[in-house]
Amino acid sequence: MTIGEIQGIESGATFESRRALYDASIHRQLQAGIVGSASAGAESIVLSGGYVDDEDYGDEMIYTGHGGRDPASKRQVANQEFARQNQALVTSCLQALPVRVVRGAEHRSPHSPETGYRYSGLYWVDRYWKAPGTDGFLVCRFRLVADPSLRGDISEDRSKNSGTPTRRVETTVLRVVRDTKLGKHVKCMYDFHCQVCGNRLECEGGPYAEAAHIRPLGRPHNGPDVLGNLLCLCPNHHVLFDNGALQINDDFSLNGGAGRLDVQRDHPVDQVHLQYHRSMWG
Amino acid sequence: MTIGEIQGIESGATFESRRALYDASIHRQLQAGIVGSASAGAESIVLSGGYVDDEDYGDEMIYTGHGGRDPASKRQVANQEFARQNQALVTSCLQALPVRVVRGAEHRSPHSPETGYRYSGLYWVDRYWKAPGTDGFLVCRFRLVADPSLRGDISEDRSKNSGTPTRRVETTVLRVVRDTKLGKHVKCMYDFHCQVCGNRLECEGGPYAEAAHIRPLGRPHNGPDVLGNLLCLCPNHHVLFDNGALQINDDFSLNGGAGRLDVQRDHPVDQVHLQYHRSMWG
Repeated sequence: MTIGEIQGIESGATFESRRALYDASIHRQLQAGIVGSASAGAESIVLSGGYVDDEDYGDEMIYTGHGGRDPASKRQVANQEFARQNQALVTSCLQALPVRVVRGAEHRSPHSPETGYRYSGLYWVDRYWKAPGTDGFLVCRFRLVADPSLRGDISEDRSKNSGTPTRRVETTVLRVVRDTKLGKHVKCMYDFHCQVCGNRLECEGGPYAEAAHIRPLGRPHNGPDVLGNLLCLCPNHHVLFDNGALQINDDFSLNGGAGRLDVQRDHPVDQVHLQYHRSMWG
Repeated sequence: MTIGEIQGIESGATFESRRALYDASIHRQLQAGIVGSASAGAESIVLSGGYVDDEDYGDEMIYTGHGGRDPASKRQVANQEFARQNQALVTSCLQALPVRVVRGAEHRSPHSPETGYRYSGLYWVDRYWKAPGTDGFLVCRFRLVADPSLRGDISEDRSKNSGTPTRRVETTVLRVVRDTKLGKHVKCMYDFHCQVCGNRLECEGGPYAEAAHIRPLGRPHNGPDVLGNLLCLCPNHHVLFDNGALQINDDFSLNGGAGRLDVQRDHPVDQVHLQYHRSMWG
């Protein structure tokens, strides 16, 4: 099992067939769209037009999980679950493992090759969730991004003091926490206390909290950056909220935790966004 | 008070004097190196050769805080504290606020202008800590980075479903958690339990933890990516550990928390790195 690049094969390399992809170790299954294991993560995916809900924006894509599909009509006939190959992509997300992406000619996208298959390089699984697919059943969805700037190494020069030689530590990015102007506002409203646990991280020189968008920013969710879509959370509850372990009911009681969300009078938390977030987890 | 860009002034703009910087609102003090307030963060800094411990690598710099210096000799004669202007830079770090950076001709660096002052654009305060300066007293230090890739907006297209128009949400990056191969190893050793609190974040589809480098990677610390320099922490304790609220003694008892660090027999936590980390907080 190889996570990451296959030596000698550059992004952009083309292949005539699934067999050729297999022989090159790029995608080591002849039929399945996802190769990987639940525990070790996903090795590679192939986009080949099998799922009507896939969205391809080039360096960013919304990929549909495996299962629940009628082989003949290719339509969804049952809900998908985070299990087996879908679980492999979840593990890739939680552990920041890169996934090889291959596009086939039958995948309807301007980024597909005209014939055969093209290796598109490494992507990160930025987020996973569930959503009703075009055919009405729940599908597992994954936002994958190819972002070379987030794949950077940390280069280290000769230290002034220790005289250690130049070397590089290979790093990947596990988590990027973004902030907005309104994010700062919601953190001040709660004086950096987590709305779930009340915890306030007291760092040297000041408190720290994170602003969480209930309905996520960016494609495909397009959540708005408004106060009604923001929460002030500690990093732990932010991770749990973004990754399906914690949802908030309309009365602010918690699915996945005891107690209630602390909500101030002048904080118009929007139940439409809470409902959207709950729907992301089936 | 203006945090961020000053309208009409591009990175690279040059100024004859401190007075000209002041009149352009780039740096609104005629003498101080740091402009800002403890609560709102730092607006701008000027590098002008005043501190012997400054290090300038262009898009990355190690900046020395204010205070404890003899005006005549420009040498440190007392310890610095995270207070006043230094505190402003800490707030900029904890709240991900951009800081305008100006280099003066007297700042010894290949990135300085030959005469006068040059505005170098916006930097982020990536990290803050204390260290013994060249003159033997503790100085406050700040790692600032200019990284346009981390300053990106999230662009949003017309949503398929909602028909909302194209718009952009301005975001900044509050926190980037990097991971390495050995980071994955230390997380598996502890089965994703935090070595400080024992907490394990149970996400949909799997657990989540973060690997923390005791002596940080990268300049100027150049900590090694080895098992003896790594801890498995929950996000909350990672933030506290990186920002001065938690240190670990040689016997694994905690400064800044009750209890002891959980350390497995086959995890050779290096006391030299623990000492280095403690020294970062005076």
